[in-house]
Amino acid sequence: MDGLIVRGARLWQGPVADIAIAGGRIAAIGRELPAHAGSDTLEARGCLVMPGLVDGHAHLDKTLWGTPWHSHRAGPTLLERIDNERRVLGELGLSPQRQSARLLRHLVARGTTHVRTHVDVGPDMQLAHLHGVQAMCEAHREFIDVQIVAFPQTGVMRQPGTLDLLDQAALDGAQVIGGLDPIGVDNDPHGQLNAIFAIAERRGCGIDIHLHDRGETGAATIEMIAERTRALGLAGRVALSHAFCLGMLEPARLDAIVALLRDNDIAVMTHAPSGGTPFPPIRLLAERGVRLFTGSDGVRDCWSPLNTGDMLERAYLLAYLSGFRDDAGLELALTMATHGGAQVMGAEGYGLDVGCAADLVVVQAENAAEAVAMHPPRRWVIKRGRVVARDGSTMLPALD
Amino acid sequence: MDGLIVRGARLWQGPVADIAIAGGRIAAIGRELPAHAGSDTLEARGCLVMPGLVDGHAHLDKTLWGTPWHSHRAGPTLLERIDNERRVLGELGLSPQRQSARLLRHLVARGTTHVRTHVDVGPDMQLAHLHGVQAMCEAHREFIDVQIVAFPQTGVMRQPGTLDLLDQAALDGAQVIGGLDPIGVDNDPHGQLNAIFAIAERRGCGIDIHLHDRGETGAATIEMIAERTRALGLAGRVALSHAFCLGMLEPARLDAIVALLRDNDIAVMTHAPSGGTPFPPIRLLAERGVRLFTGSDGVRDCWSPLNTGDMLERAYLLAYLSGFRDDAGLELALTMATHGGAQVMGAEGYGLDVGCAADLVVVQAENAAEAVAMHPPRRWVIKRGRVVARDGSTMLPALD
Repeated sequence: MDGLIVRGARLWQGPVADIAIAGGRIAAIGRELPAHAGSDTLEARGCLVMPGLVDGHAHLDKTLWGTPWHSHRAGPTLLERIDNERRVLGELGLSPQRQSARLLRHLVARGTTHVRTHVDVGPDMQLAHLHGVQAMCEAHREFIDVQIVAFPQTGVMRQPGTLDLLDQAALDGAQVIGGLDPIGVDNDPHGQLNAIFAIAERRGCGIDIHLHDRGETGAATIEMIAERTRALGLAGRVALSHAFCLGMLEPARLDAIVALLRDNDIAVMTHAPSGGTPFPPIRLLAERGVRLFTGSDGVRDCWSPLNTGDMLERAYLLAYLSGFRDDAGLELALTMATHGGAQVMGAEGYGLDVGCAADLVVVQAENAAEAVAMHPPRRWVIKRGRVVARDGSTMLPALD
Repeated sequence: MDGLIVRGARLWQGPVADIAIAGGRIAAIGRELPAHAGSDTLEARGCLVMPGLVDGHAHLDKTLWGTPWHSHRAGPTLLERIDNERRVLGELGLSPQRQSARLLRHLVARGTTHVRTHVDVGPDMQLAHLHGVQAMCEAHREFIDVQIVAFPQTGVMRQPGTLDLLDQAALDGAQVIGGLDPIGVDNDPHGQLNAIFAIAERRGCGIDIHLHDRGETGAATIEMIAERTRALGLAGRVALSHAFCLGMLEPARLDAIVALLRDNDIAVMTHAPSGGTPFPPIRLLAERGVRLFTGSDGVRDCWSPLNTGDMLERAYLLAYLSGFRDDAGLELALTMATHGGAQVMGAEGYGLDVGCAADLVVVQAENAAEAVAMHPPRRWVIKRGRVVARDGSTMLPALD
């Protein structure tokens, strides 16, 4: 296929227009663009066109997607869930390659064109998950862009050997170094943070830290993260995932922490957690200039069966849990699931302008607010100018 | 069509079997049932079959469904939202007939076979909404069963003339009498409750009271409702909608209120409200024997753009907001969206047994827990033995 024209597309924050695509990029946007020989045409008939959905926080290697239903039986605490996952994954003997391939295909079908995935690195699996996921990302590179975080799921300082593995993961191609509750899991915040910031600086990686620790424990951790971000000149390279504590602080304390996040350009990822778990006040953070993004978290895994891997539904959950009813709130949720994640991932050429990569999603909606409110099926998903999914099914051959 | 056989259906809480339907009822359930001449066949291929979804709390007359996107601009308080709705509906000049027909079709497409709708009754529209909705329910009777609550949206005692209208609504066929925050809106709990219970007793109606009043205000109202339910022998005929207060009480006070609900068989409807609004602790109430049901609340209306009218997604939201990850919790959410609402509505012959009305929904899922977790598209919707929707579209002719 030489090119593609999407006709009669309603552009997010723009008019109805045609979009001409050539060489995998948006070549022109305008009324009644001429078709070139060899171009395919999609008749959008007023459907909304958005840039591709961005899943800024997934766990591709541990999903149970595509396997028989697994009844959730883990205890409620973080450490119980970590132990439970180790036991269940050991029993099931699933391959991180196969599982990540299964989930990648599902994400493509739901319109995700970019995903940041945390991949477990630790003394038990060493770098096997990393290498397995990397192979599948390469195999699916025409369909979805993947960025890998080397994630110490069982802790850093409490698990000797993990630091060397994280360093090797960076050498092997992980773009981001992860962390996990420096206080709650490691009980050694300076140890964990000094170590992972050192690897990131040495290897030129970004940082993305799972921070479940609540209240003041979480806030104190953010102070320590901000301090190191400033000292090492890593502004714009550091993200916090979950950061439940931001939903629990007194206004004056929240103000101070938010200022640290903004001043050090530390991004915040929330997936709008289930069960009444506190989560960051999205609109306030956006108004203060903090970068925000969102993600699926674990899709159908040992942590929860509740996440579906659908980033438009995720935007809906962000809006629903935040109580956004106005258009600005609904658009903010969609921005987190698109531009917000793309910025954090440093996605090249992301957007709806001429010259941008032609990564697009088409849905039946009048505007962005309606797209979030109804999160309708994905009519077409386009990756680098090629239709990769249609009406919920990918163009990829079956795995089995 | 003389009959229908659904082959290879995975029954909720049962095995894979064929379901034979005749005369609008389930005639047989078993392995390899014989086809009768003139029967159509649906090959379920292991899809899950559930009884029809039940929307126990809708507002058919006020939806903006099918009209251009309406940006939400109402203030945050109940009274601001009531006033805003009056103004917007007046400006838009929509017909309750047309709007209820539009929404009924959407509900059918999403698998709802029974709906309880509150319909505004008050000095401004008198009984026009009631009569309009009634006409559309009659027009759609082969597709969906509707039960109407005469709902005093602008208050009872503060709006002279409303009581007479509620009484007339009952005479005109409303099966249930509504109420609205006897303290917060009317500031006259004894006045409102005495009056609406008197109408219900006189006309043989049920009662369903919108109770947004929070904390102790709500709890005190429940005590007054329970007292009247007992005195008039109306156990099993009274429901509370929303009952946010049940999510806000201290344990001992909650125990006492829950005992009143159970002892007087007062049902509780929650739709798992957005924006962190407290809501009833579902699992605790179920364990104590309180009847529970759920509903869409207003779909795309002046109150909120966030409700989609999809009751399987609603079960998901109940589970998500309640933090249910285990199968029992997911099934409880689905029970609220099926059997729970059917019981409250007194739906005749509801269920998946031989002899029940053949009101069925078929989805791609391995079991009820997966159906909630994934809330997949509705493959087929069957009402009284007839396929009324397939893959998200109803068999009804277009309205326009």
